[in-house]
Amino acid sequence: MKLQSQASLMILALLIWSSQVWAQEKVDLEMMYRIKSEGIGNSQIQNLSFHLTDFLGPRLSGSTNLRNARAWSMEKFQEWGLSNVTVDSYGEFGRGWNVKKSYIAMKEPYYAQIIGYPKAWTDGTKGLVDAEVMLLEITSEADFDKYKGNLKGKVVMTPANLQVSPAFEAEARRWTDEELEDRKSISIGGGGGRYTPEMLAQLRAQRALDQKLTEFLLNEEVGLRITGTRGSFGTVFHTRSGSYSTDKKPTTPEIEIAAEHYGRIYRLIKNGKPVKIEAEVQVEWLDDDYNGYNVLAEIPGTDKSLKSEIVMLGAHLDSWHAGTGGNDNAAGVAVMMEAIRILKTLGVQPKRTIRIALWGEEEQGLHGSRGYVQKYVADRNTKEKKAEWDKISAYYNLDNGSGKIRGIYVEGNDMVVPIFEKWFEPFHELGANTVTRRNTGSTDHVPFEAVGIPGFQFIQDPIDYGKGYHTNMDVYERMQLSDMTQAAVIIAALVYNTAQRDEKLPRKPWN
Amino acid sequence: MKLQSQASLMILALLIWSSQVWAQEKVDLEMMYRIKSEGIGNSQIQNLSFHLTDFLGPRLSGSTNLRNARAWSMEKFQEWGLSNVTVDSYGEFGRGWNVKKSYIAMKEPYYAQIIGYPKAWTDGTKGLVDAEVMLLEITSEADFDKYKGNLKGKVVMTPANLQVSPAFEAEARRWTDEELEDRKSISIGGGGGRYTPEMLAQLRAQRALDQKLTEFLLNEEVGLRITGTRGSFGTVFHTRSGSYSTDKKPTTPEIEIAAEHYGRIYRLIKNGKPVKIEAEVQVEWLDDDYNGYNVLAEIPGTDKSLKSEIVMLGAHLDSWHAGTGGNDNAAGVAVMMEAIRILKTLGVQPKRTIRIALWGEEEQGLHGSRGYVQKYVADRNTKEKKAEWDKISAYYNLDNGSGKIRGIYVEGNDMVVPIFEKWFEPFHELGANTVTRRNTGSTDHVPFEAVGIPGFQFIQDPIDYGKGYHTNMDVYERMQLSDMTQAAVIIAALVYNTAQRDEKLPRKPWN
Repeated sequence: MKLQSQASLMILALLIWSSQVWAQEKVDLEMMYRIKSEGIGNSQIQNLSFHLTDFLGPRLSGSTNLRNARAWSMEKFQEWGLSNVTVDSYGEFGRGWNVKKSYIAMKEPYYAQIIGYPKAWTDGTKGLVDAEVMLLEITSEADFDKYKGNLKGKVVMTPANLQVSPAFEAEARRWTDEELEDRKSISIGGGGGRYTPEMLAQLRAQRALDQKLTEFLLNEEVGLRITGTRGSFGTVFHTRSGSYSTDKKPTTPEIEIAAEHYGRIYRLIKNGKPVKIEAEVQVEWLDDDYNGYNVLAEIPGTDKSLKSEIVMLGAHLDSWHAGTGGNDNAAGVAVMMEAIRILKTLGVQPKRTIRIALWGEEEQGLHGSRGYVQKYVADRNTKEKKAEWDKISAYYNLDNGSGKIRGIYVEGNDMVVPIFEKWFEPFHELGANTVTRRNTGSTDHVPFEAVGIPGFQFIQDPIDYGKGYHTNMDVYERMQLSDMTQAAVIIAALVYNTAQRDEKLPRKPWN
Repeated sequence: MKLQSQASLMILALLIWSSQVWAQEKVDLEMMYRIKSEGIGNSQIQNLSFHLTDFLGPRLSGSTNLRNARAWSMEKFQEWGLSNVTVDSYGEFGRGWNVKKSYIAMKEPYYAQIIGYPKAWTDGTKGLVDAEVMLLEITSEADFDKYKGNLKGKVVMTPANLQVSPAFEAEARRWTDEELEDRKSISIGGGGGRYTPEMLAQLRAQRALDQKLTEFLLNEEVGLRITGTRGSFGTVFHTRSGSYSTDKKPTTPEIEIAAEHYGRIYRLIKNGKPVKIEAEVQVEWLDDDYNGYNVLAEIPGTDKSLKSEIVMLGAHLDSWHAGTGGNDNAAGVAVMMEAIRILKTLGVQPKRTIRIALWGEEEQGLHGSRGYVQKYVADRNTKEKKAEWDKISAYYNLDNGSGKIRGIYVEGNDMVVPIFEKWFEPFHELGANTVTRRNTGSTDHVPFEAVGIPGFQFIQDPIDYGKGYHTNMDVYERMQLSDMTQAAVIIAALVYNTAQRDEKLPRKPWN
């Protein structure tokens, strides 16, 4: 008897609880249907993807192409009838830089082409460099003396430990149900950082030596520095960039080359065979505008009391410079543009304002989104809240390639879990049903999260992302167009639901 | 009773049969041990691999590098004390060709580097080509009129259907026991060829049109032709080559470019955005020696009645020109050189003569091995037998990359199966134990097989071979050095066993 009545009470409680959830999270299934129909039936993903990659080209922060990308996206937003289409500066970024020519080949012991790209914001060469490669083996400042006076006009390289191994794992995968379930679990960290104090001291010493080497090479008037990179089979990862700062001094021209080509030159020299390189880099500096920018556009809210509130979605418009930034992040931009196009095309009259942001200068430290948050939302250091802090319900971001959405990271926000579980229901059959409390970092939702605004990234299938992003081969072909069509539909739906919800999404406490 | 006596008879028969096999195939286990010790303990594989790839460079048939490779390998053979080290011409091959410079980039709508390689034996450009790309959409000769008079100095391309898909399968694999077992099974063909008569007619018509297009482009004085290739992520497969024939007429310069870069140019043009290319190709023709050559060297036989008989091992020294021919076929050459070095170092006194052959001009149609067979072994057309037909016991070839040997293809020769099963026994723990009756084609054992000489290729683990061979990225890094060490040991053992065997290896009937 007692057991029975306990069970009855539990069932009653469950019914009340679930009806409350259901009452709160009413999903407009007709709208979900309309979003799917427009998104799948009239997808603009292919067209947007082509324009963002092939048509606009690489969109390095500060480059002419990124300026063109801003103009192009604004035109699109205007064409679609969005409101308040603006390009908004958050402050200074730095100098613009375009590659005008890049060529590198081995000339001796025999002619061989080299796959290589000028390091971002490097200076150009003084015409065609045609010189022997000097392998600099430097473990302390004293080693500089070995080379002093002998490097003028030469090509230099330093040893690097580039591992190129066969790929026994497939480069493209789809998460299995089991793996997705596993992604829900959270392990509590602790137990110390990645680095011991000794390792940190060693890293700092290496960095200091690297900096001294950089100065030394410049003083020696070295003709060109070549650097090996991660990647294989012709794929070249960008290792690091030069300086775009407005007080930038000249630097040694630097080309990042394919691991195999680096390896070949290294081995030849170590085996006593001199190597000669011919190379030319021409660059162009832009000093007419040092500002960084975001592109913004809106579907205005229509509810008297809620239209001042905002649901944001966004992705970064900038990319690295040797590919065309396909998966990183033309994919995210195309999906977010498509999501707002779907909503606009359907003529939705959202209660809250829907605002899309195409961020600038993400790759150099989330500058666009950080700048926006600092300008409009809150100061993460002083904890000063600004006008939009109280207004933004949520920010949705996409920046893990073009793979299908399989779920969402809620950054430990327990309160939104039942909401997203409900909102994902109409998309289970499209493969998206995992709500994980896990965090994910390194992109434009982070500045929002940092000031207490719910910011979300999505779990995406890892298709060509790990192998291709930040490389010369992050191009149109990397983008999975049908996966992106799915992603745009789901994001349009979540954005709509967030705009229509009675309350803003629940927040984690922040001051 | 009856059953018992039958069983006894069977056991007796089995004992007699197996003792015969054992008697015949006595394996000198001490020698097997010594071969393993030298091959694994003092492996020269790394050094040979470095020299064949990085040091010598690409070894295109007729090129300066291939000439250097012949000289280098002869030096090595002499250094090791091999006998009768010779470079042996089988007749005329064609013109030599070296790339002296190659550069290609997109100049408009924005500057972008292009990964591309001159087609083998293409002519160079007339200085720097700087011109718009014309997309030629030609389905019949009549379409030529659309372009006539408008192509002078231009860059041209034709549409191509290049599929670039994510890799859901790993590029590198090791055969499982199950797969190896499966490789023993043979399916009897029949049921018609791959092509229907209609398909063949269509292929012929397309080829005829292609040839007319080639002439048309030459007459129009096109500046450069660009061709898309198979491959992705910066790996470029060679599609086809130009002509090395000694009566060769000039051709339109042609560069084969990465599928993604081809795709970008194609999509831009199809979307109405003009594309400008700048490119330069400088080549050098060698007309001082049109002959093709093989390099030969020996450990002379010591048995009075058997020393005139020969066991051959070999691999092709030539490669394609954009990589350094690592897996195809520096790997095979290094393994075969190492196998004979092991035997020579151990001071073996083989009954039969052991002869290594480094073939030339394999990639253009097995010219080196075909030429050798025609000159010394037999004429496959007239069936005329020559001096060595009766002398060669077996030819061992390696040309499927650098993956570990897992077994051998015996080309349907049932008679050698128990022999190889016995010979592989000491190598089971090194992963090699599969003797399959299957055929494998397309390399230098084929000319031997074609005139009735037992010719063998090996089952090798497919590590980076399918993705890398015939590409710009077939380089040193593709070579699996420890796998090659295993292969050299096994081949040294098989060659030794073949040299010591009482009889030549059994042959399939030929005339």
